[in-house]
Amino acid sequence: MAKLTTQPYKGARDFYPEDMRLQRYIYKVWREISERYGYEEYDAPMLELTDLYRAKTGEEIVNEQTYSFTDRGGRDVTIRPEMTPSLARMVAARQQELAFPLRWYSIPNLWRYERPQHGRLREHWQLNVDIFGVGSIAAEFEVIKVADSIMRAFGASEDMYTIKINSRQLLSQLMGDYLKLDVMRAHKLSKLLDRKDKLSEVAFNLQAEEIVGDEMIRLKELLTIDSIDALPTVVVESGLAENLRQLIADLEEYGVNNVKFDLTLMRGFDYYTGTVFEFFDTSPNNPRAILGGGRYDELTGIFGQVNVPAVGFAAGDVTLADFLNTHQLTPSLSSATDVYVAVIGNNEKTARKLAASLRQAGVNAAIDYTGRKAAAQIKTALKQKIPYVIFVGDEEAKTAKYTLKNLKTEKEQKAGVNELVTLLQS
Amino acid sequence: MAKLTTQPYKGARDFYPEDMRLQRYIYKVWREISERYGYEEYDAPMLELTDLYRAKTGEEIVNEQTYSFTDRGGRDVTIRPEMTPSLARMVAARQQELAFPLRWYSIPNLWRYERPQHGRLREHWQLNVDIFGVGSIAAEFEVIKVADSIMRAFGASEDMYTIKINSRQLLSQLMGDYLKLDVMRAHKLSKLLDRKDKLSEVAFNLQAEEIVGDEMIRLKELLTIDSIDALPTVVVESGLAENLRQLIADLEEYGVNNVKFDLTLMRGFDYYTGTVFEFFDTSPNNPRAILGGGRYDELTGIFGQVNVPAVGFAAGDVTLADFLNTHQLTPSLSSATDVYVAVIGNNEKTARKLAASLRQAGVNAAIDYTGRKAAAQIKTALKQKIPYVIFVGDEEAKTAKYTLKNLKTEKEQKAGVNELVTLLQS
Repeated sequence: MAKLTTQPYKGARDFYPEDMRLQRYIYKVWREISERYGYEEYDAPMLELTDLYRAKTGEEIVNEQTYSFTDRGGRDVTIRPEMTPSLARMVAARQQELAFPLRWYSIPNLWRYERPQHGRLREHWQLNVDIFGVGSIAAEFEVIKVADSIMRAFGASEDMYTIKINSRQLLSQLMGDYLKLDVMRAHKLSKLLDRKDKLSEVAFNLQAEEIVGDEMIRLKELLTIDSIDALPTVVVESGLAENLRQLIADLEEYGVNNVKFDLTLMRGFDYYTGTVFEFFDTSPNNPRAILGGGRYDELTGIFGQVNVPAVGFAAGDVTLADFLNTHQLTPSLSSATDVYVAVIGNNEKTARKLAASLRQAGVNAAIDYTGRKAAAQIKTALKQKIPYVIFVGDEEAKTAKYTLKNLKTEKEQKAGVNELVTLLQS
Repeated sequence: MAKLTTQPYKGARDFYPEDMRLQRYIYKVWREISERYGYEEYDAPMLELTDLYRAKTGEEIVNEQTYSFTDRGGRDVTIRPEMTPSLARMVAARQQELAFPLRWYSIPNLWRYERPQHGRLREHWQLNVDIFGVGSIAAEFEVIKVADSIMRAFGASEDMYTIKINSRQLLSQLMGDYLKLDVMRAHKLSKLLDRKDKLSEVAFNLQAEEIVGDEMIRLKELLTIDSIDALPTVVVESGLAENLRQLIADLEEYGVNNVKFDLTLMRGFDYYTGTVFEFFDTSPNNPRAILGGGRYDELTGIFGQVNVPAVGFAAGDVTLADFLNTHQLTPSLSSATDVYVAVIGNNEKTARKLAASLRQAGVNAAIDYTGRKAAAQIKTALKQKIPYVIFVGDEEAKTAKYTLKNLKTEKEQKAGVNELVTLLQS
């Protein structure tokens, strides 16, 4: 047989313990802050019937970017490319029994068939935070506050990212009542706006003119608007502009000062119905969205249930890690193992007893069973980022006093079992 | 469009927060104990090239039970049915740089296309604990001790499960030197032994006789052996029996007294090369394996690397949950949210300020934004298993003294913000 490759599947990652430490740190912060705001963890299967995504995920993703296949029983299934459809399915399934408002979060892995590139891989992990059952902007306020608190917990300061905010409803109204576009043209224009950053100005203008025709001048004017106050009176009168203004004011009252109105912000998914937002890295070295979300009030309806208002956001591990690296916020993380017990000579039994006592007291301890020289055993501990080594040789076995070495400071000291526990726990 | 189903994919589970609490408890114990013994977490992609499993996973699984398909780039891929091949791939990929012994663990979700039944679902989560680089029985001792400590941490006592133990090498020697079977027949007999519990005695005997012929009497004698001392001299002289005896003695020295030699124990995978073991539920209501593992010293070789000795085990969440239920060890778990802030009347702003102060102090707090009556808000907290409610009404907004209600005891008390923090943290 030809020898097998040791490479992971293209666009997916192996997490060696050193890589996993960063993942664990990311998941821990995500969990801590989500729970601080009263969100509870849920999970769903990694496979769903393909129909679930046909409804609202968006054609490009379903037709070109999913991992879809037929199972051995003839069902069309898809590895989840996003979590929101599974979430809406779960809420709809128990809509009568559940106690609203629901605050739920999850950290699923998701798959998209794409060309792997900076910030985008085929498999990634994604925090999903959603609130169901609150129709007022209190929901947007809270969800954006959760996202912002997460960024702060990672050490980010407000100059490192901008929070772009917009409203699909407001945009709809502008396209209908101001630009006088019919539903079809309005939909086309939204899709074009969503791709605006990927097009040259000339290309964008050409395609926009095809859609809006004579209204091109008004569209261009609209696209220069960068504050809510400058919006046409039609959206001011309907209250949509006031809603956004109030939301931004509420956020400012709670110390979130980097919110910026952006009329071109769309967010890709078809299911958004109101506010949309995006946290965008301000560094010129990593000009990309770190997380995004919005209001989707009509998603449980696709399961034959009454619609429940909902707001949520999603944040990916790959884009976050890039952000942390860009701003030098990636922490230096050591092993979960507190101490490495090096065995010198024929003292395995003593080492085993010692390790058992340490573990009993809650110390995470690994034993070297290789019988190598002390230097080789220390090297193993260093490579595995374990901060301490205890040596167990003939002398130590006899006196029950062990040498504890701090691998960072290289300081050594002799200590009995109880003292070792105290030293290692401090 | 026809309405979509709200059911999860067949044989897979939705984890609502109440279900997720149990999963989180299981993962937490798995992580804590694995780390106590110096194991570090790793992870690998959920998709692998199908070739990875063709080598050593076993034909039945690969041909009949995997989720395999061709990706959009023409690659044959499989959703992982087990973790060990990915682990061996990762070790082989960095075999020169890694510092051995390696102690690694992971909690992947795995997929098998099977008829869903008690204890077996299509998607399950599985703890994998493995040590690489230790050829002596110190590795078996440690790995079995980790598994045993996990059972104890879940509250199990030694009468609730038996640790069955056997050796593939010892069995090989018996089949070759004692039953005089050639390699082909020996392989067939192993496969038959693996299925022994699923067959009637008559069916087993018929199929066994076809393989061993005249040696049927000796085979039957072998199968009655239930202690190492009763084994034929051929395996006693080779030292294999002594190895097992020593392992059992070592475990007993450390308080593991429920180990039982079982010559028919095989464990399904083709890659095991030495000791195999299995933790088996002693309850007649749940007579099944809870976890299993063994030694596999020849797995990195399939990647063109030198073989590294390895021992590991895997434990599934579904079988564990069944075990906990059977023995009434499933704990009662409450929400991660400490307190629910009920808003009475037009006091949302005060509630928000209060919640912010609580969160600042590390209390997990959710706010009710629905404007419903107090009773309805309490009901939401009760349903979500949140232990405390704080009421924020006109009186509270004025005095900054809030009513804290313990939903279990129904006791109420008035307190200011700082006092609330102290009460909720104790």
